Amino acid sequence: MATLPNPLELRTPDHSIEELFIKRWSPRALSGDAITAAAVNSLFEAARWAPSSFNEQEWRFLYAHNESEHWSTFFDLLVEANQLWCKNAGVLIVVFSRTTFTRNGKPNSTHEFDTGLATQNLMLQAAAMGLVSHAMAGFDRGQSKRSLNVPDGFEPHCMLAIGHPGDPAELPENYQGMETPSGRKQLPEIAREGTFSFDE
Amino acid sequence: MATLPNPLELRTPDHSIEELFIKRWSPRALSGDAITAAAVNSLFEAARWAPSSFNEQEWRFLYAHNESEHWSTFFDLLVEANQLWCKNAGVLIVVFSRTTFTRNGKPNSTHEFDTGLATQNLMLQAAAMGLVSHAMAGFDRGQSKRSLNVPDGFEPHCMLAIGHPGDPAELPENYQGMETPSGRKQLPEIAREGTFSFDE
Repeated sequence: MATLPNPLELRTPDHSIEELFIKRWSPRALSGDAITAAAVNSLFEAARWAPSSFNEQEWRFLYAHNESEHWSTFFDLLVEANQLWCKNAGVLIVVFSRTTFTRNGKPNSTHEFDTGLATQNLMLQAAAMGLVSHAMAGFDRGQSKRSLNVPDGFEPHCMLAIGHPGDPAELPENYQGMETPSGRKQLPEIAREGTFSFDE
Repeated sequence: MATLPNPLELRTPDHSIEELFIKRWSPRALSGDAITAAAVNSLFEAARWAPSSFNEQEWRFLYAHNESEHWSTFFDLLVEANQLWCKNAGVLIVVFSRTTFTRNGKPNSTHEFDTGLATQNLMLQAAAMGLVSHAMAGFDRGQSKRSLNVPDGFEPHCMLAIGHPGDPAELPENYQGMETPSGRKQLPEIAREGTFSFDE
């Protein structure tokens, strides 16, 4: 069996950082093995401790294990290009947020941003446990609200596939070449002291 | 000198997670000491490795060290309640994102969310280095674009104060009581299997 590449061998940070940030990447080769309830709890526990404006904690996660009655409801939300490999995920998650503050009903202008903070914790915890997490924009957002009975005032942001690493050779051929950790822009392309001087 | 409480002693996760997620919190007591250029690079390096839709990396960070010519431009963006304690930050950051894809010019519906992913990496890296990071919604968003010459097509999300831990007794009296790590909702309030069943 072929194995997934190790990002720690393929990515070289330019400045010293925690290894976990490099270790997290987004492969598609999953084994189909189940994720334990304990592991799922650890993922959401990590998300739980993210910061948010006024500690609103506006993130909401709905999920399905791959052998549950709910699986097909989640799986059917994905575009076909994601279904091709997500069939081997152990858990599928849809990430939502509440768009108004519980405290006063006013619009929460950072609900998407805050929910990103929490979701990164979730994905890093997955990497720490040796699990794959892969965030996807390719799903039917409107249908996700209807299929999952999500009330007005909550909006979806992404779906996440969580799985055990699989054999890249078992992916469709045109997906196999993507199974390598992606690179990044240079640091001066994303961070500068002073006023905006990026070459955009 | 009083010292900041240790979140590892005050927060008890319900499920096993990496300690770093608990260690990160948002105090206001900062020492005023400078942040080295190497430390700043490590913060943005961590942000750099976050995932994004189509690997767009739409996050942009502008920052100022507390002894630089740019400091007052950044400091003046903050609401007074944040200026009161941010005067002792070592670095102030404004977090922006590009709202359209570089690849095709179309709107990027996950730019806020993705930029949250990257910003969480930054804050976790700060915690790993023993630095405080504190995200703030309390700043003038419109003025941040004007003062920092940010072009159309980029939007601000938050400001971050980065600093060395300070003495809580030196904060204004009505701020001292806030210097304790905040709690969180219970896990079933943010994550459920199947359809939406939160009590909202």
